Amino acid sequence: MMAEKYVDLDTLKYLLNDVHDLNSLLDRERFQDHDPESLDLFIDSVKQFADKELFPYLREMDENPAHHKDGTVMVHPQVKTMMEKGGELGLISAPFDYEEGGMQIPLLVQTVTAYILDAANNHLPGYTGLTQGAAELIVHFANQTLKDTYVPNMLSGRWGGTMCLTEPQAGSSLSDIVTKATPTEEGHYLISGQKIFISGGDHQYAENIVHLLLARIEGAPKGTKGISLFVVPKNRPDAHGTLTPNDVTTVADFQKMGQKGYCTTHLGFGDAGDCRGFLVGEPNKGLHYMFMMMNGARIAVGRGASAIASAAYHASLQYANERPQGRKLTKDGTKNVDQKQNLIIEHPDVRRMLMMQKAVVEGSMSLCLLAAKYYDLEYTATSPEEKRKYNTLLEMIIPVVKTYPAEAGIDAVNNGLQILGGYGFCTDFVLQQYSRDIRISAIYEGTTGIQSQDLLGRKMTMGNGEGAKMLMDEMMQTIQAASQIDALRPYADILSQKMQKTVAIFEHLMPFAMKGDYERFLADASIFMEFFSLVVIGWSWLEIGVNAKQALLTGNGNYSEDFYESKLTTLEYFFAYELPKTSGLAEILMHPTTVTIKKEKETIC
Amino acid sequence: MMAEKYVDLDTLKYLLNDVHDLNSLLDRERFQDHDPESLDLFIDSVKQFADKELFPYLREMDENPAHHKDGTVMVHPQVKTMMEKGGELGLISAPFDYEEGGMQIPLLVQTVTAYILDAANNHLPGYTGLTQGAAELIVHFANQTLKDTYVPNMLSGRWGGTMCLTEPQAGSSLSDIVTKATPTEEGHYLISGQKIFISGGDHQYAENIVHLLLARIEGAPKGTKGISLFVVPKNRPDAHGTLTPNDVTTVADFQKMGQKGYCTTHLGFGDAGDCRGFLVGEPNKGLHYMFMMMNGARIAVGRGASAIASAAYHASLQYANERPQGRKLTKDGTKNVDQKQNLIIEHPDVRRMLMMQKAVVEGSMSLCLLAAKYYDLEYTATSPEEKRKYNTLLEMIIPVVKTYPAEAGIDAVNNGLQILGGYGFCTDFVLQQYSRDIRISAIYEGTTGIQSQDLLGRKMTMGNGEGAKMLMDEMMQTIQAASQIDALRPYADILSQKMQKTVAIFEHLMPFAMKGDYERFLADASIFMEFFSLVVIGWSWLEIGVNAKQALLTGNGNYSEDFYESKLTTLEYFFAYELPKTSGLAEILMHPTTVTIKKEKETIC
Repeated sequence: MMAEKYVDLDTLKYLLNDVHDLNSLLDRERFQDHDPESLDLFIDSVKQFADKELFPYLREMDENPAHHKDGTVMVHPQVKTMMEKGGELGLISAPFDYEEGGMQIPLLVQTVTAYILDAANNHLPGYTGLTQGAAELIVHFANQTLKDTYVPNMLSGRWGGTMCLTEPQAGSSLSDIVTKATPTEEGHYLISGQKIFISGGDHQYAENIVHLLLARIEGAPKGTKGISLFVVPKNRPDAHGTLTPNDVTTVADFQKMGQKGYCTTHLGFGDAGDCRGFLVGEPNKGLHYMFMMMNGARIAVGRGASAIASAAYHASLQYANERPQGRKLTKDGTKNVDQKQNLIIEHPDVRRMLMMQKAVVEGSMSLCLLAAKYYDLEYTATSPEEKRKYNTLLEMIIPVVKTYPAEAGIDAVNNGLQILGGYGFCTDFVLQQYSRDIRISAIYEGTTGIQSQDLLGRKMTMGNGEGAKMLMDEMMQTIQAASQIDALRPYADILSQKMQKTVAIFEHLMPFAMKGDYERFLADASIFMEFFSLVVIGWSWLEIGVNAKQALLTGNGNYSEDFYESKLTTLEYFFAYELPKTSGLAEILMHPTTVTIKKEKETIC
Repeated sequence: MMAEKYVDLDTLKYLLNDVHDLNSLLDRERFQDHDPESLDLFIDSVKQFADKELFPYLREMDENPAHHKDGTVMVHPQVKTMMEKGGELGLISAPFDYEEGGMQIPLLVQTVTAYILDAANNHLPGYTGLTQGAAELIVHFANQTLKDTYVPNMLSGRWGGTMCLTEPQAGSSLSDIVTKATPTEEGHYLISGQKIFISGGDHQYAENIVHLLLARIEGAPKGTKGISLFVVPKNRPDAHGTLTPNDVTTVADFQKMGQKGYCTTHLGFGDAGDCRGFLVGEPNKGLHYMFMMMNGARIAVGRGASAIASAAYHASLQYANERPQGRKLTKDGTKNVDQKQNLIIEHPDVRRMLMMQKAVVEGSMSLCLLAAKYYDLEYTATSPEEKRKYNTLLEMIIPVVKTYPAEAGIDAVNNGLQILGGYGFCTDFVLQQYSRDIRISAIYEGTTGIQSQDLLGRKMTMGNGEGAKMLMDEMMQTIQAASQIDALRPYADILSQKMQKTVAIFEHLMPFAMKGDYERFLADASIFMEFFSLVVIGWSWLEIGVNAKQALLTGNGNYSEDFYESKLTTLEYFFAYELPKTSGLAEILMHPTTVTIKKEKETIC
């Protein structure tokens, strides 16, 4: 049985326009041709596209997984529609400059449209999303010839794009990449190696696929300092645009527990010694360039996870509103069986599971939009200080944007499934699919462990803690605004205490790094991530609360009273049920010893 | 790729013999023919059976789900083996009296063997397990004719058994059962109604299936006080044993996200007006009788969840011991890429995820054995006081035994999957299957919400809190023993504080019940369950710790030093990483207001 709704468009637009104030961005020169009305129409057109071309195919893409056949990957026909119509609608080209064929639409708006697509059918938007990211890398770092050759066909959706990082022996450890690039006298390189887990790496509808690939030029330094970035097309075009196979082989398509319509390929490069790669930018700077695409992909993963949780939330909400079961207890603790059964949405335990989902979905949705806004502010900054500020803020929150929606989203979908009882486990209902689909979010684009090391080991310490300070200053502004409103002052106080606790934890851990004991410093990085994420999402909710309360107080809001009250109830929920978890997490982090560091001769059995 | 190990037999036997002291049970008259050596051989024979007939078929039962075809359910051929050879091995008859054809084996031992079977292949043991539970009901409450007619063929594995409670319109709300039983002059009743989610309800290998079914005799009181229990065979045997179809129709087999080899049927009774049911015991006492089977099934679900988590733990442990990836950071915070990669088991974050699994698996394993021991002590009690004591203790922990292994087990398997990174999401590895299989454990046999209401609403309050007090007395004994050992005293102190916190929470909540506000009293029952479970499992670990430390101090243990050290490390892990979560949960529970209770006119949107 299909749910009817997968995303609350009102909430998305509210966060976009009211909480994150899209209008303030439209003053920037880059965006001056846009106004809120035309962007609103763009969003609506994407919603219609998602309703018609994405959402109806969600179940059948799960039931008919992408699979390897005769040297290529067979995917669902909607992949073709996604690329072609997505290209026509401008879903790939939206953020690019006019001169590249783009629309100069703020990432903030594009995050809203991408969220809609992700929520409608998470198996499809990756195909256009990675194409966009790959084209972005070429535009920013490659020479004019590569731009002219590849970008137009990518933005139109005719050619796909991928990012090729992972290798079988290296996994998350990019230092250990061994794919080889051998220079030739004609200027290109000959590529040879294997890449695995390549999303959208090949399919029967792709005339061409443009791989952005990390490899090591012969003689390059070891480790990440010797990695270069190459454009490696599946088929190389000659001067007339004629395509010749480029010795890229599709070895396999990984079969997965979820997101089965989004292919995950194993590719071989240069088995026949004729795979040409074209260097992007300078040698040995590949990882630096790739971080642009990785950061975009990390935001996309968080956004996608939040969106899957959104779809699961609305499916379970619909069920809870329709399913009668059980009765409230009477004053003497018994049930009056003459009464008809209650709808399950009236039971507090079910309401808790619904509110949990709403808190995670909308809190993480708001955080994803904030990341996009920081990106836009950085991109259009008018001074180096401004650029640096928003770059720093963005860097600070990216690991959280990647991780919280994934980890809390998995729990949220799990709650959604639980609301359906036995039916939640059955394939007749979509919840079980969402629970399988969302699981990858905590893994790809850097696992939660990797993101946590990044947050604590790199981001919290960068510039001697300057980034952390900047982010806390932003939080303090919200806390101060909330303190001006009686009803919100208690929440402001709590969040302020949690920030102090964050500082105390960091001061407990930092000395280990100072004396070179990085293993100890980072041992509990994942726990720190869990702690810090809750604080950050508490901030997101406080920000929403300030806006909603002001709208109620002034009566100037665009939405109904119920709409704002429901935001304030969710804020209350978050501070009563989610944020208190930080107390236990802080105890873990402040523990004097760490049992997880291997002792001499210790075995786990 | 298949993992090699699914359960640690040493740990199972250690918990059985050392921690839970099987020997002390063998003094009881009922068990006097058994000695530890012969029971050990019985366990080993079951392990061999599981190695040969269960474990190798785990993956293919997932890949070839049970399904409805031509009016019956087609299951994997190993179901036949499970019933037949399981019958021969005594897996069904083990706990029954000699005079019923049983072996009078303690449930404590049978829990060990069932754990092995569950861990080897969770799709199979339900077939024999429910047959055993159904036969147990007949033996205890039905007349001699029904016993003679049904029990021998059930204990031999020739006929299956089920429990038929759930109906489409009622779900968990048994008050709303409408299946009808109409008396006839021949003594039997005519049954008519629909039952859903019936595990093992039909398959092509079953010569017969004996349904233990709840129905309402015409004119019976409304609600649970008007429910009676019936034996309703798929085929009814005449005096010569000839079978005639009994108008039980297999309407469908639910397709699920996991445990696909264990069929879940929708059955119709009496569509043609000729479905005979045979009353068990007295009319209107059906739910009371059924609780015997439900309690057994709840222990079985907890045990099964712990066992699936055990299999997932060993699969991820093997991977972590074999997979090289990444390097430890050096003193200056960089990586030395000239070193070869570390095995991932050396990374603290991976160790944390392994220890979490071990703590959940072995802690819940021990709790399941404790429940079985309470059952044995109750069953063989020599005085009414003793019987009452162990019955009360068992009742107290059953909701926890059902719930903690399920909920924490889901998280544990999730950690196991995460350890494999991208491979965890791929069907080439078994972790994704375990994560799908275990999900049902939090749903069937009463969801976590239902168990939590039972714990807080019924068990904590029964006999004016007498049960809670008895259980805490048991915990205090462990705390006192631990206090005698220097290394364990800190843990004893922590657990003692957590018990005090439990009392404080209960004293905060109880007044709501006293004034008849049951909705408020029970609103956070699931949070209370999470809190209380952690305290109970903390107790399990402290008990294991006392035993392991004593073995190390005396040098009299049967196991290696590493074995005991590893138990103590896991105790340390549990108290440093899991038990602190109670601090946040306590804050939630002590919160003065409860946002999850529906306000007038409030909508969740």
